[in-house]
Amino acid sequence: PFWRGGLSLKAEIISIGTELLLGEIVNTNASYLAGSLPALGIDLYCITVVGDNLPRFKEALERAWGRSDIIIATGGLGPTEDDLTREAIAGFLGEEMTVDEAQVKILEERFRKRQMPIPARNLKQAMVVPSGCAIPNPRGTAPGWWVERDDGIIVALPGPPRELRPMWEREVAPRLEGRSGGMVLVTRTLKTFGAGEALVDEMV
Amino acid sequence: PFWRGGLSLKAEIISIGTELLLGEIVNTNASYLAGSLPALGIDLYCITVVGDNLPRFKEALERAWGRSDIIIATGGLGPTEDDLTREAIAGFLGEEMTVDEAQVKILEERFRKRQMPIPARNLKQAMVVPSGCAIPNPRGTAPGWWVERDDGIIVALPGPPRELRPMWEREVAPRLEGRSGGMVLVTRTLKTFGAGEALVDEMV
Repeated sequence: PFWRGGLSLKAEIISIGTELLLGEIVNTNASYLAGSLPALGIDLYCITVVGDNLPRFKEALERAWGRSDIIIATGGLGPTEDDLTREAIAGFLGEEMTVDEAQVKILEERFRKRQMPIPARNLKQAMVVPSGCAIPNPRGTAPGWWVERDDGIIVALPGPPRELRPMWEREVAPRLEGRSGGMVLVTRTLKTFGAGEALVDEMV
Repeated sequence: PFWRGGLSLKAEIISIGTELLLGEIVNTNASYLAGSLPALGIDLYCITVVGDNLPRFKEALERAWGRSDIIIATGGLGPTEDDLTREAIAGFLGEEMTVDEAQVKILEERFRKRQMPIPARNLKQAMVVPSGCAIPNPRGTAPGWWVERDDGIIVALPGPPRELRPMWEREVAPRLEGRSGGMVLVTRTLKTFGAGEALVDEMV
């Protein structure tokens, strides 16, 4: 990678999900997001994967908050008890979650189409913190969160790639693009043959 | 996941490689290793991905060393200047690397077969620390490292999956299996249909 100038914004990804730590799924969300950050002028500092574990996730949030401008959290936005991303972010920020009535309406509409009552547990997906707002999710019941405080940004997105990707492309990437001051990372791939990696390195 | 008894050993994975932070490759090594740990009775605490950056890697090592019994490092064992795993581990442990003559012979043999001289840079792949020994790599020039000190274990494996996987299966997994006291993690998958995730959660 050849760096063109200094990059202004530093990001890190925190992926939440015990299924990632059991090797049941591959973390394609991290590589997808990582691949789109250079063109936004954002430098990815590191990727951390933690289980569905409130203290460990909060610990990762604290460390990331201290050294990076943008934290992208993936997973843990579902309706079940082990979905802890909202609780972790609210707890870390010391903010109280309240019900966002607009999100409740969206959930009601979604379940009405499926002719089902809203399970009580899904209501937690309509919660937000004062420093945050919901990111619409056209493909699922879990809206994301866009949180801004003290010059830091936390973006939370649901784990299923078919939900995460359009939310990233339509909602998050455009908002981040304006923040990075126009610097982008350019990479150049040189194809070689014959010599081993060490020889090519010496030649470069 | 249903936990059968308490698990005795805690591990974490540190993956090294700027290509992972640029989204050029997906971290399949992490999911491969994660998937094999439960059957060894080892509990995976977290996965961290850092770039080819000595201070950041050392920082990740320090944090992992303080809370986990086993650190599995992948990547950064190549012959080029940005391959920093050996330097990082040696520096972190405060140990001096020395040339392992047996590894030099293996490298010489490998390059003789390819009718090439050993590039000077490949010689660093024959280095070890006093607390460590080389893990043979039948498919590449980068041996791994097995390091043991103060009740902690650091395993370093090369990044290419076709090299990492046989080394893990033949050399590392058998050594780790004896350490974990026979406790294993058993998971049970329940298939459901109809009801949403939240309802199923309530029923469970």
